[in-house]
Amino acid sequence: MNIFVINSGSSSIKYQLFKMPSTSPVCVGLVERIGLDDAVITHKIYNGNEEQVHTFTLAIPNHEIGLNEVNALLTNTQFGVIQNTDDITVVGHRIVHGGEQFSKTTVITPEIKQELVKTFQLAPLHNPPGYGGIEVAEKIFTNATQVAVFDTAFHQTMPAYAYRFALPESYYTNNHIRKYGFHGTSHKYVSAKAIEYLGKAESKIISIHLGNGCSITAVKNGQAVDTSMGFGPLSGLIMGTRTGDLDPTVVFYLVNTLGYTIEQVSNLLNKQSGMLGLTGYSDMRDITKAINSGDANAQLAYDMYAYAIKKYIGSYAATLNGIDAIVFTAGVGENDALIRSLICKDMGYLGIELDTEANATRKPGLREINTPHSKVKILIVPTNEELEIANECYALLK
Amino acid sequence: MNIFVINSGSSSIKYQLFKMPSTSPVCVGLVERIGLDDAVITHKIYNGNEEQVHTFTLAIPNHEIGLNEVNALLTNTQFGVIQNTDDITVVGHRIVHGGEQFSKTTVITPEIKQELVKTFQLAPLHNPPGYGGIEVAEKIFTNATQVAVFDTAFHQTMPAYAYRFALPESYYTNNHIRKYGFHGTSHKYVSAKAIEYLGKAESKIISIHLGNGCSITAVKNGQAVDTSMGFGPLSGLIMGTRTGDLDPTVVFYLVNTLGYTIEQVSNLLNKQSGMLGLTGYSDMRDITKAINSGDANAQLAYDMYAYAIKKYIGSYAATLNGIDAIVFTAGVGENDALIRSLICKDMGYLGIELDTEANATRKPGLREINTPHSKVKILIVPTNEELEIANECYALLK
Repeated sequence: MNIFVINSGSSSIKYQLFKMPSTSPVCVGLVERIGLDDAVITHKIYNGNEEQVHTFTLAIPNHEIGLNEVNALLTNTQFGVIQNTDDITVVGHRIVHGGEQFSKTTVITPEIKQELVKTFQLAPLHNPPGYGGIEVAEKIFTNATQVAVFDTAFHQTMPAYAYRFALPESYYTNNHIRKYGFHGTSHKYVSAKAIEYLGKAESKIISIHLGNGCSITAVKNGQAVDTSMGFGPLSGLIMGTRTGDLDPTVVFYLVNTLGYTIEQVSNLLNKQSGMLGLTGYSDMRDITKAINSGDANAQLAYDMYAYAIKKYIGSYAATLNGIDAIVFTAGVGENDALIRSLICKDMGYLGIELDTEANATRKPGLREINTPHSKVKILIVPTNEELEIANECYALLK
Repeated sequence: MNIFVINSGSSSIKYQLFKMPSTSPVCVGLVERIGLDDAVITHKIYNGNEEQVHTFTLAIPNHEIGLNEVNALLTNTQFGVIQNTDDITVVGHRIVHGGEQFSKTTVITPEIKQELVKTFQLAPLHNPPGYGGIEVAEKIFTNATQVAVFDTAFHQTMPAYAYRFALPESYYTNNHIRKYGFHGTSHKYVSAKAIEYLGKAESKIISIHLGNGCSITAVKNGQAVDTSMGFGPLSGLIMGTRTGDLDPTVVFYLVNTLGYTIEQVSNLLNKQSGMLGLTGYSDMRDITKAINSGDANAQLAYDMYAYAIKKYIGSYAATLNGIDAIVFTAGVGENDALIRSLICKDMGYLGIELDTEANATRKPGLREINTPHSKVKILIVPTNEELEIANECYALLK
């Protein structure tokens, strides 16, 4: 089954083609700068261990033209990976926000599309381009079943006492204000891998996704029971440019005392804060360099970042009444040994014991980095959201 | 040493008179509805186990007249508790916000008063009436040393990684935006009592203050290391009318999508949310009644309230790397056995084991309500902020 995975942003399309049940993509690509005369397509083709990279700079006025160009690459007589467009029988779309309507992967129909439009209000920046991707893919991949995979779906199993805010009920029932959680596709993928590794379906896992966005999810017997992101992707852990948890009183103060508009506050909290705001860098590698050159602000930011994660691990240990494993994933989680060691430090009360050598050794794939005595498994599980989207489609339609 | 403790609000003055070192007040009172023609003074006098209550309704146009009336009661020839005004040698003032300037109890001088005025911006509702109380007391109790005891002082020992927000540094250095924490006088008092009871200065304690306002503090070796309230008293636990922790994205949504003003949002989050917003009641006793009559909303709110506390206990167990004792205090914490049992349920991973019978038994004073096997002591410690203010003054000036 040829499954084409699309992640459509406001000016970009990320894509991967899987020939399931094989879990290695046959091609991976990115269309950037859509709308400009110098848009770029980076198209990588895999054949065993061989990687071919094709890069094109051209005018791409809109997503439809962009996706048509990609389709031409897929079916290119010289280096195409499929014979013709109709060979793609499934297109899997990453959709950021599924509201409460979508708790699982869903085949897209005209009725579903109407429901999707209703979610725009909850994710005005992300869902309209995701929806646009569906409309464009329907025109081009006419033989394919279109499928939506939601970033929020995995977290729909949270109990009400975890997802509700302490606001009057009408804000939930009428305005759908609640905790949704994001990065669900990643948390689902890595927690499932961890469960498989532990060989124990009845397990208590804390999944820690540390990329540019960061979130943490408590997973009990394979189901999400709490997560750190909330109504939007701002709350919870400290991120590259986002504050994470913040007393809303600060918002009132910025508006009332410092004269900010609400847009300026939102911009500050979402785009100029987090590690960027604290250190001047949003990339953890730059921050580590700064720490090594004696930058006290960078050290403080790093300590704050680790401490926020530590507290959430503690919090979700209470949610789960103990833990079997913690899982690190995504760019920072998979690659930053120092942050993992800071997080696991002084956590002996839970029986967490990091193997410093295993932690410091870079290796591909899932690996265990705790000591043999550790009561809690500490795992690094590389995430793969695109593969998870393909898996979801395959499981639904095979 | 006669220490008169004052807690001055915008339209009220609470007061107690201590003859230290005795820790029982000789009188306790409240002036309410200041500014109105039918203001009320409730003045209670204690003599051993005997309580005399005097109530007066009269016009009290301002705080100075109110405090003069109180002074007249204190020195009343018939039922006064002191001979004359000059017998009061110390007046201890409860001041809500000490900013970063005030990390301990402080004798008030003209210079200190100038510093106090600078804190108004951080607590515009609470610090001006507190300051007003000082000015009035200076006029009336001319023989007394005026002392300020700050609600934030106990939390000034938090490390920077715990009190800083992930905002650009200038918001901290120029605008003093950070986590301050409140209820410090209560947390200090009950955690000190717990340490005394445990007989162990090197201890890890989680102090849980559940009144109409609620907060929780991690106390290591007698010092606060983290707390749930932040820049203002809104964040952290769910309270009578306040949301507790809330994703600031909700604020943006209320303004941008629902058209709220920032004042309306602040009012909603501070005064119409929490248990009141969820159930229609802000008093836990009414909510318990509603639960018993089958109200599902009340049950959910109760579960949310307990769950938020549970998560903070977990979080601070990580902060402290284990815990020796959790301490319940204030109205709900001291009296609501059901909420304590919900909080302590399924916390076996920490070795928390509640003795259900001891928990259900009402008794005065400090008591232990864990089983003999519990690895963590569960204590009820009645708080007494006024006594703690008197203690602070006595320790400073004796």
